[in-house]
Amino acid sequence: MCQVENKKPQERLQERFAYVASLLERLYQLDEEHGTRRDEASEQARLLSGLQQWLAELHSADIAHILEGLPLEERLTLWQLVQSESDGDILLEVSDAVRETLLADMDQHEILAAAKELDADELAELASELPQDMVLELVESLDALQRERVRSALSYAEHQVGAVMDFEMVTVREDVALEVVLRYLRRLKELPGQMDKLFVIDHAGYLKGVLPIKRLLVNDPEKKVAEVMATDPVSFHPEEEGIDAAEAFERYDLVSAPVVDHDGKLIGRLTIDEMVDLIREEFEDEALSRAGLREEEDIFSSVWKSINNRWSWLAINLVTAFVASRVIGVFEGSIEKLVALAALMPIVAGIGGNTGNQTITMIVRAMALQQVSTGNTTRLLKKELTVALLNGLIWGGVIGVVAWQLYDYLALGLVMIAAMTLNLLLAALMGVLIPMTMVRLGRDPALGSSVLITAMTDSGGFFIFLGLATVFLL
Amino acid sequence: MCQVENKKPQERLQERFAYVASLLERLYQLDEEHGTRRDEASEQARLLSGLQQWLAELHSADIAHILEGLPLEERLTLWQLVQSESDGDILLEVSDAVRETLLADMDQHEILAAAKELDADELAELASELPQDMVLELVESLDALQRERVRSALSYAEHQVGAVMDFEMVTVREDVALEVVLRYLRRLKELPGQMDKLFVIDHAGYLKGVLPIKRLLVNDPEKKVAEVMATDPVSFHPEEEGIDAAEAFERYDLVSAPVVDHDGKLIGRLTIDEMVDLIREEFEDEALSRAGLREEEDIFSSVWKSINNRWSWLAINLVTAFVASRVIGVFEGSIEKLVALAALMPIVAGIGGNTGNQTITMIVRAMALQQVSTGNTTRLLKKELTVALLNGLIWGGVIGVVAWQLYDYLALGLVMIAAMTLNLLLAALMGVLIPMTMVRLGRDPALGSSVLITAMTDSGGFFIFLGLATVFLL
Repeated sequence: MCQVENKKPQERLQERFAYVASLLERLYQLDEEHGTRRDEASEQARLLSGLQQWLAELHSADIAHILEGLPLEERLTLWQLVQSESDGDILLEVSDAVRETLLADMDQHEILAAAKELDADELAELASELPQDMVLELVESLDALQRERVRSALSYAEHQVGAVMDFEMVTVREDVALEVVLRYLRRLKELPGQMDKLFVIDHAGYLKGVLPIKRLLVNDPEKKVAEVMATDPVSFHPEEEGIDAAEAFERYDLVSAPVVDHDGKLIGRLTIDEMVDLIREEFEDEALSRAGLREEEDIFSSVWKSINNRWSWLAINLVTAFVASRVIGVFEGSIEKLVALAALMPIVAGIGGNTGNQTITMIVRAMALQQVSTGNTTRLLKKELTVALLNGLIWGGVIGVVAWQLYDYLALGLVMIAAMTLNLLLAALMGVLIPMTMVRLGRDPALGSSVLITAMTDSGGFFIFLGLATVFLL
Repeated sequence: MCQVENKKPQERLQERFAYVASLLERLYQLDEEHGTRRDEASEQARLLSGLQQWLAELHSADIAHILEGLPLEERLTLWQLVQSESDGDILLEVSDAVRETLLADMDQHEILAAAKELDADELAELASELPQDMVLELVESLDALQRERVRSALSYAEHQVGAVMDFEMVTVREDVALEVVLRYLRRLKELPGQMDKLFVIDHAGYLKGVLPIKRLLVNDPEKKVAEVMATDPVSFHPEEEGIDAAEAFERYDLVSAPVVDHDGKLIGRLTIDEMVDLIREEFEDEALSRAGLREEEDIFSSVWKSINNRWSWLAINLVTAFVASRVIGVFEGSIEKLVALAALMPIVAGIGGNTGNQTITMIVRAMALQQVSTGNTTRLLKKELTVALLNGLIWGGVIGVVAWQLYDYLALGLVMIAAMTLNLLLAALMGVLIPMTMVRLGRDPALGSSVLITAMTDSGGFFIFLGLATVFLL
């Protein structure tokens, strides 16, 4: 029986990667052996041409994935073997960090050739990483319509709808019969991807509605477009935030949607594949900025690039750690008298940091989903403070008893409980207020949230614990 | 001119939320005034029926979003007003935590009624949160085919393809003409959502290929399905991980895809909307588990629920903090002699934690994207250790000079540099090895990564710094 190949896509991809890696390894081996002998030279040629043929049959997304998983030298060897007409697609698929390494390896001529294969919106995406003069040359080489579109896409910020929309709209008039639409589509020979609806416009280009392909297929071909179209479609504006559009796609299960200007004129189209990329980027940026990384890192990038990517938050952290250290410095006299304080203080600070991070993670998430407004701050704060109070008494109680037993000093245990409770209250308060303040200041609430809350609970925790100890124990 | 309403979806949603919130506020005001006067009672009735009508026109995803943003009492008031035929859809849209509060408010009869409106796969999704006996009763009330489908969906784990696939496949035979397919579709009256391709099967139900709607539309209607279908479609198995399927959807820009059993028989369908949900969940779970939250939290949930959600990682953190404290305890004698050590040690530990978190975030991410295999561990480790060495010398140098100046003690500054460098090396080593070990043990590399790395760099940092100080300074 001839069935379709029955293998998981993920497994296939892994096999492909392993295959390339082993071929490349063999190639490098031959290289190292200074393949001057004729049979070795011919094996090398054979391997290379085999690899090249094999690559030609792969989806560009798969090639992109393989390139990302290879160390720089191997990556560039493979990149040379890729057919030049796929170059553009692959450049769009790889991560920013890897794209940079590939572009650095291409000369101007190759880049221009790769860019020629791309649509206006894709060109614009690539343009942000090319030198200014190359972009100008590229734009010059386009026809008037394409040039206008690239300029339009470049006029929006990277995260706006205008920068991610494409121009592959198929439009129809509302007064024609479905039969005519079907004939029209047949004449087009090729339809754009992710097209689940046609856009219905009037003679001046204003959007009147959308005609879902589903309706086109099930309705009587003699009916007019106006009879079956949807007149209140979800549409977007080019200045809107891309991530807001992505959330609307998710909420209403959209596959494609029209983009209109302020007068309601159709100017572009959004598709679910771009929206999925935006959702993924949003989450990745959040994870990165939480950990204090400035941008996505190519794991095989140079040591210097890595240091450059990571240093800014490290520097901030160094300052906050130094402040915490000075808080302890103030109480050096107390620690000299009761050295147990030095051993116990990191517990108070550490637990505070952990609970503060829990609170802030939850609030940032709820804010992203727009479930938290400044209107319900009081209620939220009350709840978080209650949770903190109870947690402080419970876990502070546990650690207080342990401290009491360990140092045989009841008052020390009591100070421990009080300090834990107060620091957890501080963590809850800051966990709610930091992201709220960030939003009021128009900043991303996730950015550096972890570093900020830890700074508060470290310095705060040391101050509370050592302060209480100084007052009550010494 | 009559154009489609020209407003951003996100703005519309916010306005709707504000509208409901203000109505509910007014209702509660009336309640508090003990609305016994006739005009107040009638205003209340008017408000309620207005709200009910308005809700009937909203998309269930919008109602779900509004419900999530309301405190418990208001949420349940609104829930009572929702038309019962939308109940099922809304329950599927809300977050798990909010769903629980809604289900708790419904009696068995209402839940059964809501469930009747759902498809087999949706029923299965809901079933996991209903009491066992209610699920049995539900399954009993279905016809044989539906029952079989619900049972099949329930037999897979929540994260497997089999649990998220639906059964709305439209299938055709390969030997019919496209014209016949078009007529067949027209007879169906309604087509499933997100349907961008038909599945081509043989008489025994084996998948032979897929017929993209695009191709159906542009090809000559007299052609046979076999001539235009794609014979090597991406297909999935029910036991596959859902997130792997989601990544394949993203990579190949799919809208829908067939699910086949091991013999290649068509058994279901995956659609992009479910895949987007999986991608979002994956990232959210990662963010939550990193912060030590067990599950998504309804921000208006009770204090008790919050404590319950957060306690487990807090307890783990308490243990690791206690271990770090005991490490310091060992060196109490040294601290007594040189109390500056107590003030400086949190700097060493803190910076180590920060850089360790940077490394681990990057490695976990690269592992999720399958760019890191155990094969390139050595190379990665070498790079991370080099970065750590340089960072340690640079930042350790800065803080070492500060410590030297502050305490006027050169040797203390040198110990600080050495301790910082060693702890950053430890952080890099652990940042690579912890996630790799997790994966070898078959665990999620993100789970608790932050707590584990911090535990290492805290205890390790204290030990290294105090140990070096004891050996060289005292």
